[in-house]
Amino acid sequence: MRLDPATCRLLFSSKPVARLATVGRDRPHLVPIVFALDGDEIVFAVDHKPKSTRRLQRLANLTTDPHATVLADHYADDWSQLWWVRADAIASISDDRRELARCTELLSARYPQYVAAPPEGPVVRLGVVLWSGWSAGPVSTDRG
Amino acid sequence: MRLDPATCRLLFSSKPVARLATVGRDRPHLVPIVFALDGDEIVFAVDHKPKSTRRLQRLANLTTDPHATVLADHYADDWSQLWWVRADAIASISDDRRELARCTELLSARYPQYVAAPPEGPVVRLGVVLWSGWSAGPVSTDRG
Repeated sequence: MRLDPATCRLLFSSKPVARLATVGRDRPHLVPIVFALDGDEIVFAVDHKPKSTRRLQRLANLTTDPHATVLADHYADDWSQLWWVRADAIASISDDRRELARCTELLSARYPQYVAAPPEGPVVRLGVVLWSGWSAGPVSTDRG
Repeated sequence: MRLDPATCRLLFSSKPVARLATVGRDRPHLVPIVFALDGDEIVFAVDHKPKSTRRLQRLANLTTDPHATVLADHYADDWSQLWWVRADAIASISDDRRELARCTELLSARYPQYVAAPPEGPVVRLGVVLWSGWSAGPVSTDRG
């Protein structure tokens, strides 16, 4: 069954990890991300400032083409519990210090790891254009 | 730390679900997949033959552009246990009955759900061109 946007947002937020797809040189690229929701934006930060000699592919791709898709999903051996939520989004990348502080605050509320070792940035904001989702059966929105 | 291709393959196979990224109309697209490895190919099948009126985006994309990227990852609250494995691949799609039988055999060995309800196809084979992977610390290759 198709999921409405509010349920999509809630389920998406219930997962600690999602996967970010970008496009570069006509090829798809994928990495896992830890993230927070800020209204209808998905925010994440790069843990350590990438050196120019090893620029991160996800940032290079989003700089050239800001279209991003992010997926969170739930797997269980009981396939009646399967669900996934996809966010189609437009990315913006920022090195602003206040933006990093805001993002770090949101991330630290979800990930205690970031309290001890805050991310260095940059910050990526993904403005969600479309939430879509599917579940095999009725969904529970408990964190899981 | 970077993971060698053999470790990538083993870790990838240890997960019951991966995420498939394709590109269509310059946009990334993402869905979760259940899969099996057949040598250096990742195989999966569509559960129910898509009706022409609701062609699946993943198949439409791969028909136009066979470049695919698949990601499996491991999340834990202890971030020293994080890892991910990415397979960059070229897809081929088949409606051949023997191909479906072979794929169903491989999938059924991993997913008892497919024994009771075999997939209808088509079958997608992803020939892996490049395995890449990262782990935060030493990895265990137990199923998890």
